[in-house]
Amino acid sequence: MDAPPADPPPAIAPDLAAMARDLFEELRAAHHDGTGITRETYGAGETAAMRRIEAIARSAGLDCAWDAAANLRISLPGTDPALPAAACGSHLDSVPQGGNFDGAAGVIAGLLALLEARRGPPLHRTLHLFVMRGEESAWYGRPYLGSSALFGRFDPAWLDLPCLRDPALTLRAAMRREGADTEAVAAGARLLDPATLSHFVELHIEQGPVMVARGVPVGLVSGIRGNHRHPAARCTGEAAHSGAVPRWLRRDAVLGAADFAMRLDASWRTLLERGEDLVMTFGIFTTDPKEHAMTRVPGECRFTLEYRSESERTLDDFLALAEAEAADVGRERRVRIDLGPGVRTPPAVMDPGLLGHARALCRSAGIPHEVLASGAGHDAAIFANAGVPAAMVFVRNEHGSHNPAEAMEFGDFLTGAAVLRSVLLTGAEAIGR
Amino acid sequence: MDAPPADPPPAIAPDLAAMARDLFEELRAAHHDGTGITRETYGAGETAAMRRIEAIARSAGLDCAWDAAANLRISLPGTDPALPAAACGSHLDSVPQGGNFDGAAGVIAGLLALLEARRGPPLHRTLHLFVMRGEESAWYGRPYLGSSALFGRFDPAWLDLPCLRDPALTLRAAMRREGADTEAVAAGARLLDPATLSHFVELHIEQGPVMVARGVPVGLVSGIRGNHRHPAARCTGEAAHSGAVPRWLRRDAVLGAADFAMRLDASWRTLLERGEDLVMTFGIFTTDPKEHAMTRVPGECRFTLEYRSESERTLDDFLALAEAEAADVGRERRVRIDLGPGVRTPPAVMDPGLLGHARALCRSAGIPHEVLASGAGHDAAIFANAGVPAAMVFVRNEHGSHNPAEAMEFGDFLTGAAVLRSVLLTGAEAIGR
Repeated sequence: MDAPPADPPPAIAPDLAAMARDLFEELRAAHHDGTGITRETYGAGETAAMRRIEAIARSAGLDCAWDAAANLRISLPGTDPALPAAACGSHLDSVPQGGNFDGAAGVIAGLLALLEARRGPPLHRTLHLFVMRGEESAWYGRPYLGSSALFGRFDPAWLDLPCLRDPALTLRAAMRREGADTEAVAAGARLLDPATLSHFVELHIEQGPVMVARGVPVGLVSGIRGNHRHPAARCTGEAAHSGAVPRWLRRDAVLGAADFAMRLDASWRTLLERGEDLVMTFGIFTTDPKEHAMTRVPGECRFTLEYRSESERTLDDFLALAEAEAADVGRERRVRIDLGPGVRTPPAVMDPGLLGHARALCRSAGIPHEVLASGAGHDAAIFANAGVPAAMVFVRNEHGSHNPAEAMEFGDFLTGAAVLRSVLLTGAEAIGR
Repeated sequence: MDAPPADPPPAIAPDLAAMARDLFEELRAAHHDGTGITRETYGAGETAAMRRIEAIARSAGLDCAWDAAANLRISLPGTDPALPAAACGSHLDSVPQGGNFDGAAGVIAGLLALLEARRGPPLHRTLHLFVMRGEESAWYGRPYLGSSALFGRFDPAWLDLPCLRDPALTLRAAMRREGADTEAVAAGARLLDPATLSHFVELHIEQGPVMVARGVPVGLVSGIRGNHRHPAARCTGEAAHSGAVPRWLRRDAVLGAADFAMRLDASWRTLLERGEDLVMTFGIFTTDPKEHAMTRVPGECRFTLEYRSESERTLDDFLALAEAEAADVGRERRVRIDLGPGVRTPPAVMDPGLLGHARALCRSAGIPHEVLASGAGHDAAIFANAGVPAAMVFVRNEHGSHNPAEAMEFGDFLTGAAVLRSVLLTGAEAIGR
């Protein structure tokens, strides 16, 4: 997958870097809620942040347009309108009491790229920055609202979703209040034709600990993990007196579920050793609070099982393995392990050509980097699944995201922003679009 | 431990067997609560059942006496008051919505023994039947109230315990209402000198499934399991995003706790293979409902751990093993397993001479029997720990106890009652008391 050597990304201009630093601080001050940062999906804070970005773009002579979903598109028109446009973007909403960088870092990095390009000679190819609405599922239970609308994939049923903060507020009402045309969105009209884009690149802070652990400032995303979830799995045995029933007559639901978890854990380790991408989580694991007791052999243990992978085949294989182990444990321990209904979200593959190009850029510039999978979802997945070649640049970040302790070094941000800009400007040629 | 052949137990006389069958039915009808049988500790039902037993005993010419704890002692005086008395007994209270046989079977079997002895020539040795109060912990959270009082081991603090059914009712008030002298009981006076008894034998239904599974009507109890309990154990790891954190950076509390459970399960199996007596139960096992989620690596898993054995050394060994495995899993999985404070109830050993004698009786009569440990506690343990040589006869019973589905075949009861009577009448000589 190695691409030929590429020109190293030039550094971000000092005055633009200073502007970005001030802008992060301005957003932090404006949307601090006392604990963290709150910019609600289709809320006043999100809109205010978008308008602030718009004002900067307009004053620098960039074009700005709001679409029917109230997404903001900032553009630097190219001299050849027939060429597909190069695009970048991210979102400005946050979770409640979240951090300042999840989303905003990608928008500000894209803004820097367009502002710097505006200063140079005219480009053949148009550049777009999409500032998208409602990426976080924390407010209405659904992520990617704005990017889904771009490609006509906004489910009209979502309009009736209540706000989790205030059930009296529907998504429809919030969208209208912030200027969206909900009827157009509900009609499923595409607001953006994917064929008009050469590629899409998104910068985002890493939400896991890998890059801090490995000591790399920049991550290049190979794919966005899909997942398979069993939200209502259970192991059923038979409740019994903890003193009077010997081992050979027990049907212990906790030992059954624990055995199952250990077998999957061993298989997980084996798959990793074979180079597969996989994470596995039993997030909820509990005996029944209505009837469990210290002196009662547990008759039931409920659990959730989620596994994620960049590869749909790995998800299929792990499902088959889980079903086989469930049957096997059931036979051996005289319990019944029922995984319940499974829900699949397919992985999104980042464009291998763009990934190779981004690696070549980093190598040329001597930027330490690592290729890794994104475990969390991103707007880039919506672009990729709509057929737009997509790439993602991760920036090192401590303490995960969705909390006030997000910690991105500004120097790492500038390094990532320089990589984003180069992939935006040179990615289309690298993959022949 | 084989004893010499013994005379087989004679069968229970037909008219007494018929009386017993009627008496069970009378008690069932009197204390049916719509679902099961309810005879509350120091409650009207318990007292009514005791008075019914007393009335039958008195009309047959047996002596009856109530002690300060409102226990009933029924006696057939022997011709030699210097000889220590042979004793049997059990309880008449039940759990709420319980079964008709847990406790009552032992009292009625003892009554049959004294009634039949009353018909024969005078005995040298006095016989006692103790009908004891408050064996079940379901009402005030403490078991063995009546038998503890017999030996001056009634903790005065228990008097203030609220009834779990009605917190406005204290144990003190209930005891007084049913005729107990709570001040005498609280003063810790012994109501019974253990040296005045040659031995004690209790018949009880089995509360586990072993005898049904093995097809034996009579069980002979080798000991009453003690237990070691960890009511507040926990595995602590670190909560994390289920998609973004790879295996090598996780500290998964559920996988840590499951690993620990599987290691103890393997050790349990090994100890059983070596002939040790042990049962082990993780009765409560749960992620934190306040923060667990399907998409969150669990940071904490709370659990209880209880293990029971006839042997105090096995309890010690298993505790040491659990501590070693907890440390080992902690190191390997970067979690912390804290077993929390442990609470020990020592085992009660049944008298080996009485056990051997009971086995010889069964062998002579061709009664299929099995020696087994009692996993549940019994009044007999209080006698044994007070220094009275004790024995227990179990009667086969389906569906466990503490529920309305208790199912003891009446024929099995008569077989067990015949064994009880023989151990009561001939046990003292067999062990040289």
